[in-house]
Amino acid sequence: MDTGTTALMLCCIIGLTLMIPGLALFYGGMVSVKGSVNMMMMTYGAVAVVGILWFVFGFSLVFGDSIGGIVGSPGDFFGSSGLYSGDGSTQQTSVNGLSILLFSLFQALFACITVALISGAAADRMKFGAWMVFAGIWAVVVYFPVAHWVFSFDGTVSEKGGWIANSLGALDFAGGTAVHINAGAAALALAIVLGKSRTFGQGPKPHSVPLTLLGAGLLWAGWYAFNGGSWLSASDGSAFAMVTSFLATCAAVLAWLAVEKLRSGHVSGIGAASGAIAGLVAITPSCGDVTPMGAILVGLVAGAVCPLAVGLKDRFGYDDTLDVVGVHLVGGVIGTLMIGLVGSADTVQGVAGLLYGGGVDQLWRQFVAAAVVLAYSFAVSLVIALALKATMGLRITPEAEEQGIDSSLHRDPAYELI
Amino acid sequence: MDTGTTALMLCCIIGLTLMIPGLALFYGGMVSVKGSVNMMMMTYGAVAVVGILWFVFGFSLVFGDSIGGIVGSPGDFFGSSGLYSGDGSTQQTSVNGLSILLFSLFQALFACITVALISGAAADRMKFGAWMVFAGIWAVVVYFPVAHWVFSFDGTVSEKGGWIANSLGALDFAGGTAVHINAGAAALALAIVLGKSRTFGQGPKPHSVPLTLLGAGLLWAGWYAFNGGSWLSASDGSAFAMVTSFLATCAAVLAWLAVEKLRSGHVSGIGAASGAIAGLVAITPSCGDVTPMGAILVGLVAGAVCPLAVGLKDRFGYDDTLDVVGVHLVGGVIGTLMIGLVGSADTVQGVAGLLYGGGVDQLWRQFVAAAVVLAYSFAVSLVIALALKATMGLRITPEAEEQGIDSSLHRDPAYELI
Amino acid sequence: MDTGTTALMLCCIIGLTLMIPGLALFYGGMVSVKGSVNMMMMTYGAVAVVGILWFVFGFSLVFGDSIGGIVGSPGDFFGSSGLYSGDGSTQQTSVNGLSILLFSLFQALFACITVALISGAAADRMKFGAWMVFAGIWAVVVYFPVAHWVFSFDGTVSEKGGWIANSLGALDFAGGTAVHINAGAAALALAIVLGKSRTFGQGPKPHSVPLTLLGAGLLWAGWYAFNGGSWLSASDGSAFAMVTSFLATCAAVLAWLAVEKLRSGHVSGIGAASGAIAGLVAITPSCGDVTPMGAILVGLVAGAVCPLAVGLKDRFGYDDTLDVVGVHLVGGVIGTLMIGLVGSADTVQGVAGLLYGGGVDQLWRQFVAAAVVLAYSFAVSLVIALALKATMGLRITPEAEEQGIDSSLHRDPAYELI
Repeated sequence: MDTGTTALMLCCIIGLTLMIPGLALFYGGMVSVKGSVNMMMMTYGAVAVVGILWFVFGFSLVFGDSIGGIVGSPGDFFGSSGLYSGDGSTQQTSVNGLSILLFSLFQALFACITVALISGAAADRMKFGAWMVFAGIWAVVVYFPVAHWVFSFDGTVSEKGGWIANSLGALDFAGGTAVHINAGAAALALAIVLGKSRTFGQGPKPHSVPLTLLGAGLLWAGWYAFNGGSWLSASDGSAFAMVTSFLATCAAVLAWLAVEKLRSGHVSGIGAASGAIAGLVAITPSCGDVTPMGAILVGLVAGAVCPLAVGLKDRFGYDDTLDVVGVHLVGGVIGTLMIGLVGSADTVQGVAGLLYGGGVDQLWRQFVAAAVVLAYSFAVSLVIALALKATMGLRITPEAEEQGIDSSLHRDPAYELI
Repeated sequence: MDTGTTALMLCCIIGLTLMIPGLALFYGGMVSVKGSVNMMMMTYGAVAVVGILWFVFGFSLVFGDSIGGIVGSPGDFFGSSGLYSGDGSTQQTSVNGLSILLFSLFQALFACITVALISGAAADRMKFGAWMVFAGIWAVVVYFPVAHWVFSFDGTVSEKGGWIANSLGALDFAGGTAVHINAGAAALALAIVLGKSRTFGQGPKPHSVPLTLLGAGLLWAGWYAFNGGSWLSASDGSAFAMVTSFLATCAAVLAWLAVEKLRSGHVSGIGAASGAIAGLVAITPSCGDVTPMGAILVGLVAGAVCPLAVGLKDRFGYDDTLDVVGVHLVGGVIGTLMIGLVGSADTVQGVAGLLYGGGVDQLWRQFVAAAVVLAYSFAVSLVIALALKATMGLRITPEAEEQGIDSSLHRDPAYELI
Repeated sequence: MDTGTTALMLCCIIGLTLMIPGLALFYGGMVSVKGSVNMMMMTYGAVAVVGILWFVFGFSLVFGDSIGGIVGSPGDFFGSSGLYSGDGSTQQTSVNGLSILLFSLFQALFACITVALISGAAADRMKFGAWMVFAGIWAVVVYFPVAHWVFSFDGTVSEKGGWIANSLGALDFAGGTAVHINAGAAALALAIVLGKSRTFGQGPKPHSVPLTLLGAGLLWAGWYAFNGGSWLSASDGSAFAMVTSFLATCAAVLAWLAVEKLRSGHVSGIGAASGAIAGLVAITPSCGDVTPMGAILVGLVAGAVCPLAVGLKDRFGYDDTLDVVGVHLVGGVIGTLMIGLVGSADTVQGVAGLLYGGGVDQLWRQFVAAAVVLAYSFAVSLVIALALKATMGLRITPEAEEQGIDSSLHRDPAYELI
């Protein structure tokens, strides 16, 4: 076990945990002042429930020995058995020389944050209990299997891993499919089943742009742990992923602001924050596959396309309140497909895309992975949401929504400024 | 000297420093809008004064050669001598292979944050100068000795260490006694001597729930440095402590929200934030002693008991405004005692508690440590507070309190939003 | 390549990135509520544009083979070539055993943050497009050459480096000249050319002291990466720099509050935040040159002098709105000169200053470095600002300023609290 890599991964846990308040604020600043506490609580609540599930049996479903490439064996690490040895002082097994216990915690935060991402589609109007149940069920029947497909490589933790990583051979460095497309598709399904909020179509009314910009900054900082940490070693590969992540973010900020300027004549703080996140999303799958200059291109495309994609909800009438679809689904698809287009052999992954002479071989694999994750997540999320709607109910009452979810549901208004 | 461990501990300094704004916001969001700046300044001010004292002579009092197990020799590292060598490039001595200078900085932040924790009991009504003097005196006569008892092991820095660590043999991984019981008992004494604030009994009026949730998130992230870093090496032991810390936090959030739901029918953002902190407090002493599933239990107990303990101040009439007693004292006691109950041999500490066949041997040691630290801190804090009250005075005038401490004392209202 | 050092530097990227929201909030909280979004966007925008420039050709201008000690060869690493090898998996060259790619990212954030610092002088009244153009041009013609002078040592990245580091032999651990004097002098020039804002002379009206205190806390945490990371290895040298950084910050908080108390009878949250930053600025160049007790002195001087320097703008009538001159320029000069006064042989740099028997040898080198950087940055910044004023224009209209720049320019008011 290398202490440098161990130190890196331990510190990545700090970085990933910063994404919890980061996401809570990024979303919490964008909603109206009547729903900010609820919005932030959805992040903290999802993390809490998914974190417990992960260490009870989630890790097994993702990294246990594969049942046909579809899902890991649930009993392999049940109750965290097998993650540390009986005498407590050393781990039984390792992941590329890394403590399996530490690897599990790293992956736990991926699961937690992915589920929390979905909450942006449910602003202002979802019963908190229903959200918590949705988060738990979704983690089990959507995230855990999909993460198995994408993140479980043969022979790393268990002998047999998931079908996307091993049979299809699609590349996903840190979760373009398993995290962003997955969460984005679920957000679309949840938004459709929930229905429009009272204020849909009146445009966004972010109650605190500074909190959203702060949230974006914390996410940016923590995201290095996400992307760089996914290389699982303190080495040039992690540095490479961090450089491309940085450049895509910078480029996407500029591109989003440029699109705003061209469309409305104004550039906004919400635009700068959203651009940063769009860039980070798109580079997540591709951060080890594109060169630094390629990363600028990925950022420019994501920063230019996502602000346009955000408008789809108005055209098609689904209330994806905080644009999980426009940023995470679309950004995730962009990043996943661009590996097949501008992936370069001169990178740590080393697979050439179509424009670098690699032909369409990698591109179609990327397309299949994106399409299957999107379809699976959307369909199953739809079923979960409909089932909850039919049983416990998803929405608060119109009166409660009118009053504001923080006051009516939580009796905890965000501010008392007088 | 291992560069991986050095890297970990250097990065832990970043994590621990995040707890400064984290604590300032966690507290600062919970007070009324008239006292938020004062509340935050108490954290920054305490850190500043304790940080200086630490490197002048505090480290000597804690880690200098023990005078009867009670306190370290004040001159051993006076003025930071002995923490680095004459030629400057390397340390004279090391702590388990770790630079003693870096170890000192790590421990400095423990001292700073512990003192700052107390300020939650003094919201809205304490003279800032009196707080700064209290912070300095308390660090010297309470924290430094108690930290010596608990954290100074024979032969690590000096030949002889403190009585709790070496003679009693109580276990405290990262400061359940020295940090949380210690600060909580002092908060109780200070609250009693200060007397009730003008608005006691009217219920909490947090002026910004988002800032409190953000503060909790920053504390959560930084706490990994606290707990994981206490293992002092980039190894599986640190990872173990981080996993248990994560799980206890998740469980305590769920438990606190469940208690809220059962008692009032509503779950709140303040509850989610407080639950996270309660879980982190309780797992602080026990993070190396309980299994991952045991950590969930620790979190559930802390998350369920602390919200009930918060009500004690209303019954007994002490104005522990932000519940330092209910969360830190009670949470610290829970975590310290649960080592004796559900400590497992299958952990990095490897000591079985009562329910795992270890008998009452460890439990009574834990009880003695908790009781003595509680009693010592409470008694001495009471004396300090009474002495300051009789000399420089502790409270601002009723008029100043009526006007609000930020405006009256600091001439610095928190917000100008118009 | 040492994995411990690699882990440290990877994690320093997370820390440095925290300075982005940290600076945005530190500034964003201090401006009026009408200009907070603009203020924060200037940080994010500058980071985005400078980040791209850095990896396209900035790294070459700073660390390429020197053209007469003045500037690096622009083509040496053009388009990030030479920062990673053709096969992608390892770096071509290293910097003291550190991946050059990682070193480049570390230095990229220095460039980004330095440029963003300047924005404090331009609050409330500068066209956003003009700021972005200023940021880009300033990075190229001021920061890149000056960073070359100061940070490029012969034989580290290229054979020949810059004149201050190698010919003059001035010491600057982490950027007293290249970062703080540089940004402060540019801020002075920009403030003069921009002219006074509508509300100049009416005193500061910080709209959110909590956000400023939070920003200071995030900067404090991230600054360890800045100063400690500059030692470029996971070793006692980094620890030394972090200890002195911590102590100077603590001391400067106390000194600033003491000056406030003596002058006005009140201590403020803005004072605590500003004191922390003043201490961090002054210790930036000197963190490896002064002993821990010397660091306390550096902090006390910076914390006492900077609040007085802040008043210069009123006497001389330049609207350096958020005191970039008073804190960064003056603090940077203090720290740079104090190396020559209280630098000690018992430090990691090991150069004795005047008061430690070293004579005036180091002091005059420090003075020359400070003076030349100040003069160069001020003069060139003045030219850039005047050129932009004459062409695209720097200021928004008086009507737009009256309405507030967030609403008029960005159509994005910071808050919607009703």
